[in-house]
Amino acid sequence: MLTKEQTLTEQTLAKFFVPQGVAVIGASKDPAKVGNAVVKNLLASNYGGNIYPVNPKEEEIFGLKCYPNVKDIPPKTKDGDGDNVELAVIAIPAAFVLKALEDCAQRGIRYTIVITAGFKEIGPQGMELEKKLTAFCREQKIRLLGPNCVGLIHTHTPINASFSRGIPHKGNIAFISQSGAILLSILDWSQMAGIGFSHFVSLGNKADLQETDFLEYAAWDPATKVILCYLEDITFGQKFLEVATRVSAHKPIVVLKSGSSPSGARAASSHTGALAGTDNAYDAAFRKSAVLRAHNMGELFDIAAAFAHQPLPVGDKIAIVTNSGGPGILATDRIEKTGLRMAGFTTETKKQLRSHLPKEASIYNPVDILGDAGADRYYFTLEKVLQDPQVEAVIALFCPTALSDPAEISRAIVDVQQKAPQKPLLTVLMGGKEIQAGKDVLLEAGIPSYTFPENAVTALEGMVRYAKNKNRLMQRKTVQPGEVKITAAKKGDMQLPEKQLYNTTQVKASFYDALMERRVVLSEHEGIETLNAFNIPTAKTFLAKDPQEAAEKAELAGFPVVLKVASPQILHKSDIGGVVPNLNNPEEVKKHFREIMQRVQHFYPNAPLFGITVQKMMPPGMEIIIGSSEDVQFGPLLVFGLGGIYVNLFEDVSMRLAANLHEQDVEEMIKETKAYNLIKGFRGSNPLDLQALKNAILNTAQLVTNFPEIKEMDINPLLVYEKGVCAVDVKITLSHRLLNNTFSPREQAVHQENLAAELTERSV
Amino acid sequence: MLTKEQTLTEQTLAKFFVPQGVAVIGASKDPAKVGNAVVKNLLASNYGGNIYPVNPKEEEIFGLKCYPNVKDIPPKTKDGDGDNVELAVIAIPAAFVLKALEDCAQRGIRYTIVITAGFKEIGPQGMELEKKLTAFCREQKIRLLGPNCVGLIHTHTPINASFSRGIPHKGNIAFISQSGAILLSILDWSQMAGIGFSHFVSLGNKADLQETDFLEYAAWDPATKVILCYLEDITFGQKFLEVATRVSAHKPIVVLKSGSSPSGARAASSHTGALAGTDNAYDAAFRKSAVLRAHNMGELFDIAAAFAHQPLPVGDKIAIVTNSGGPGILATDRIEKTGLRMAGFTTETKKQLRSHLPKEASIYNPVDILGDAGADRYYFTLEKVLQDPQVEAVIALFCPTALSDPAEISRAIVDVQQKAPQKPLLTVLMGGKEIQAGKDVLLEAGIPSYTFPENAVTALEGMVRYAKNKNRLMQRKTVQPGEVKITAAKKGDMQLPEKQLYNTTQVKASFYDALMERRVVLSEHEGIETLNAFNIPTAKTFLAKDPQEAAEKAELAGFPVVLKVASPQILHKSDIGGVVPNLNNPEEVKKHFREIMQRVQHFYPNAPLFGITVQKMMPPGMEIIIGSSEDVQFGPLLVFGLGGIYVNLFEDVSMRLAANLHEQDVEEMIKETKAYNLIKGFRGSNPLDLQALKNAILNTAQLVTNFPEIKEMDINPLLVYEKGVCAVDVKITLSHRLLNNTFSPREQAVHQENLAAELTERSV
Repeated sequence: MLTKEQTLTEQTLAKFFVPQGVAVIGASKDPAKVGNAVVKNLLASNYGGNIYPVNPKEEEIFGLKCYPNVKDIPPKTKDGDGDNVELAVIAIPAAFVLKALEDCAQRGIRYTIVITAGFKEIGPQGMELEKKLTAFCREQKIRLLGPNCVGLIHTHTPINASFSRGIPHKGNIAFISQSGAILLSILDWSQMAGIGFSHFVSLGNKADLQETDFLEYAAWDPATKVILCYLEDITFGQKFLEVATRVSAHKPIVVLKSGSSPSGARAASSHTGALAGTDNAYDAAFRKSAVLRAHNMGELFDIAAAFAHQPLPVGDKIAIVTNSGGPGILATDRIEKTGLRMAGFTTETKKQLRSHLPKEASIYNPVDILGDAGADRYYFTLEKVLQDPQVEAVIALFCPTALSDPAEISRAIVDVQQKAPQKPLLTVLMGGKEIQAGKDVLLEAGIPSYTFPENAVTALEGMVRYAKNKNRLMQRKTVQPGEVKITAAKKGDMQLPEKQLYNTTQVKASFYDALMERRVVLSEHEGIETLNAFNIPTAKTFLAKDPQEAAEKAELAGFPVVLKVASPQILHKSDIGGVVPNLNNPEEVKKHFREIMQRVQHFYPNAPLFGITVQKMMPPGMEIIIGSSEDVQFGPLLVFGLGGIYVNLFEDVSMRLAANLHEQDVEEMIKETKAYNLIKGFRGSNPLDLQALKNAILNTAQLVTNFPEIKEMDINPLLVYEKGVCAVDVKITLSHRLLNNTFSPREQAVHQENLAAELTERSV
Repeated sequence: MLTKEQTLTEQTLAKFFVPQGVAVIGASKDPAKVGNAVVKNLLASNYGGNIYPVNPKEEEIFGLKCYPNVKDIPPKTKDGDGDNVELAVIAIPAAFVLKALEDCAQRGIRYTIVITAGFKEIGPQGMELEKKLTAFCREQKIRLLGPNCVGLIHTHTPINASFSRGIPHKGNIAFISQSGAILLSILDWSQMAGIGFSHFVSLGNKADLQETDFLEYAAWDPATKVILCYLEDITFGQKFLEVATRVSAHKPIVVLKSGSSPSGARAASSHTGALAGTDNAYDAAFRKSAVLRAHNMGELFDIAAAFAHQPLPVGDKIAIVTNSGGPGILATDRIEKTGLRMAGFTTETKKQLRSHLPKEASIYNPVDILGDAGADRYYFTLEKVLQDPQVEAVIALFCPTALSDPAEISRAIVDVQQKAPQKPLLTVLMGGKEIQAGKDVLLEAGIPSYTFPENAVTALEGMVRYAKNKNRLMQRKTVQPGEVKITAAKKGDMQLPEKQLYNTTQVKASFYDALMERRVVLSEHEGIETLNAFNIPTAKTFLAKDPQEAAEKAELAGFPVVLKVASPQILHKSDIGGVVPNLNNPEEVKKHFREIMQRVQHFYPNAPLFGITVQKMMPPGMEIIIGSSEDVQFGPLLVFGLGGIYVNLFEDVSMRLAANLHEQDVEEMIKETKAYNLIKGFRGSNPLDLQALKNAILNTAQLVTNFPEIKEMDINPLLVYEKGVCAVDVKITLSHRLLNNTFSPREQAVHQENLAAELTERSV
């Protein structure tokens, strides 16, 4: 039963879903108590193991012997007598939960579900209590689901270790929910909607077990084909990325992540006490790990129904077969809006359809087989369309008409898919009781049926997107540090690093200088040096202390040059006339050096002054921004887009997590923006240097990955030319944690890893 | 019963829905025949009038006397004997329909429903037959619904004159559908979903009666509160605008318009033989007439349910009351994404909530009244929130919990709204059978209840948008021609018209010149003159025939100038060096005049040549495009957006129909684009001249409205300055119908109207 992908976590969590015996601490005869509902549910679910109610005040509950303490349940003897207890469900007041866990530890129970509320969600006092639970579990190697949760259900074991009303239909969808209320609502709704589940998990406060643990379990669980999550936050971003990427390669994960708007995030925070990450970082994280993000509840389940029983499409070319025009047009509209494509048919398919369908039928996609179409016509048409090599998925639409029998048509649809099971086939049966018999036939056979065309298309779009993402995960090629080569715009203009490997020593020295001065903002010169150290071409930039030196450096840089005052305290240089562009000879340089200094003396008499930066002025090029911003959950988030003032106006940007960024990701990232149209040559102009741009982005990703202490950086503009790129301006801000020396364990680990790699290299 | 908005059309169409007697031509005893279903439906619907089956082969059908011909039904005598027949439903083969209409005419029946198919939708032959029906109806003043339709139903009369299965629940939603299949599917679905309708109309091929006729009827129908349409095309765009605008002022119209994608449009065309207008023009037309556009079937009915029973919100500030956090966050997310706002509460409300709700409750919006909330707590909270003057609409969310009774809570919600009926209150009951009793209570009381939060928010967003649109319709102030004043950028630079009124004579003269040369593209000079004539400031532009004249004109225009070759045959002037900018003195002008002429001689030795255009070079300004494109349905469609190369790159444009454009529309049009951020002053720069820009757009609208023979025009760029605007380049293309003199009646009417106005003015 176990697959080779199985890990220790997956094995151990299986005990939650297939335990040999379950103790219910807080079992009760009072129907108003949760402990009553849990015992009743365990019994009603036909759970095959032993159930042990624990309650010092009762002798028996629902005919089961009741124990005063979990420790009193007799242990299994060597001969196999006595009882195994592998799981404890705890539903007693918060104050007594820790004691109950201690009892469990003594009884050798390592798997616990704490339903009890009154922990983190009620404030600091509850938080303290919860921390004690977590610490105790870590120490005793006890795994804990909750607290403040509904419990869990597995329909195949079967087991219902929750206080739900009823159990979902058996199926192959796993649902992991951070909200107990949503889990219970969906359970209730799904029974009516006829959706089946493998298991339900209510995460609660996530004191110990997280969404990642249950993702791993669901990935392993042979009964599960698709994994749904309702999440309000993700506790460990890096772990989520690692686990979700691994799981996505095997089974689709569809996530509804709430709190995506500012007010929503506020509500999430007051609800679970969790700190919600920024929504853009979540988007980037889901994309990176091939997780599908649903935009609402309806979409979550529309997509799930398709994954549950249908094969993945190999492409995005969709055919529609309908018995009436209107719904066919609605489906077509939606297909084109979601970026899917209407399949064109082969000559052979068209010939077949033309010769067998009535002459009023439309044999082009959408195929309209008319209102009098019966089961035979549906069968014939679907068979031909599914056989067409240019068709990659099919939607069959059906509106009730006087002359059609929905159940018979549905049986034809089921038959035709059994003959051609390799392409996804979804159905839309528009109507109510007239088509119910047809819906029942499809449900039974595992063919998703939707009421309106748009829902079927949404589901198919989700499948297509997942299939693409999965392929991308498979095909990725890792780029090694130093492998990315630079492309200079025109060598003479630019400052290029001496060697092609990353020069971390230079970066550290710059950061050290800032550190010594208790600055978090790097000077322009330090920024430029940092870029150079990571093979990002920059305009030639020098620092000069006096007019004569400035004139000499200007000759070195090449005219024209720009002068900029260099002082950590003068941020808005232009406002005080601290920037003078377009200087064409040494005399102009000397003159303006003096004038800038006078203005600085006037406005900032006490500002520390490095001198004046002398920079070669680059010819005009396309202005791009490459930026990075630290996300607390997922690490540095990279931003690419149109630079200059258009950054803020159009927000024509795309984002990716910097960690393990692949060249293919970078290419997609560029192509997502409208800036790409300019890069590839817009309205007759020559294409710009895409490869040099990609390298600059990859090198930036490497920089912020190697130095997670970079809080924010903006290269704006990076000029992109027909040949090469050139950074003209850069701002780098370091984390305050650097000043206070309060690094996170992750940052320390990254630093140590990098250092080890460097030392190895040096020793060669 | 009739209101004062009632018109002749409304009265007469009432006979379709409340006829005194109905003949069914093609009535049959064969249950497989449509004529059987119609008689059965009329009987089953408890229609109160007389039913007259017509079929020469039968004596009686369903116990009703059957007549060989509709003419055989005895007429009503003066004494009141005999029978009135006001409506005929025709369900006989297509070939016999015209004859049946003739019989109806002779019998004095003026209202007919032709269910029969086999007309326009099957091709040219059917189209011919259909034209004959239309012509006969016009001649005989017979009104005809269909052909190729399902019929109609009114639940209040009651009458079911269709071949539907069953009749919808009684309610106040009218549904007008161009697809019979969708109408029947929705009927079936709505019975299950518990949605009530006032009437259903199946438009069929629209040979005579159109969507506009039934919009007027629905507006008048006292049983209707909200009007839904499923449309694949709109036959008469101008009429639709006029009728929909009038109707929208009284009742909301929600339209699902299909065929909005290119392939979808193709499908629409093959389905109904109708020519679908472009989607942008439909968007603009719906906006102009305050029609809400739904994006899919689900949305159509979600919105309808809200309008059916709830009052309009006065604003967009929404409060949420929930018994669990998750759904509250989902609703909040959606509210912010749809552009609605989360209401903030007054201190008084917060105080009340704080003092009466449990301390774990969240008293901020979304208000979380916790899982143990019963009816009392819902009542109290909703009452306080509805009373808050800062709240304009409320969504109550409910998830089933062990401790709550959904029916009781629903009754509390009903009670609280009865106390405060002036604000819309929608509900979300997440679940299935657990909450069914609660849903039933709400349904009964007319409070919409949705399964997922996003649907309620979508519905509310529709209501808010309609309320805003309706207000806008009310508040519009008409701008009269000539009222718009120009603002020059800097008078010296620009060519300004002599007087402030529109100079149509100048425009006609330019068009006449083009006409004589059989050109549809105006020369640059003609374009500039046309703009000037309609008070749109342009750069000073002259035509010069020789170097000396060019130098003189350049002095007049003021340096620097640009020279451009002026020839109707040379479209890509730059490619042959036909454009030379930045000339600063007469000598340069003369020299380059000669050089351009040499190049023209070389590349286009035989091109007709007007000379060379001498244009003042304007200082840089923000580049804007104002354009217009003719739409066959709705007339000229105006485009505004960021100009230059960014037009195509960002498509940062907004569109409006030019007819009756108001200043407020123009302001909204500008504010919809990101270009507006630049206009109002971006990143510290000064704001640009919004008023001058608005005037230029209004004047353009006036130009293309006065001259519908303008097929396309682009002012690109129009430079916008801190003071004034200036058109630098304009392309005007006239309709080929001008050359062929094949004007539409509409164009002729516009021309005559304009001419009359001009002549009146001249005579003053």
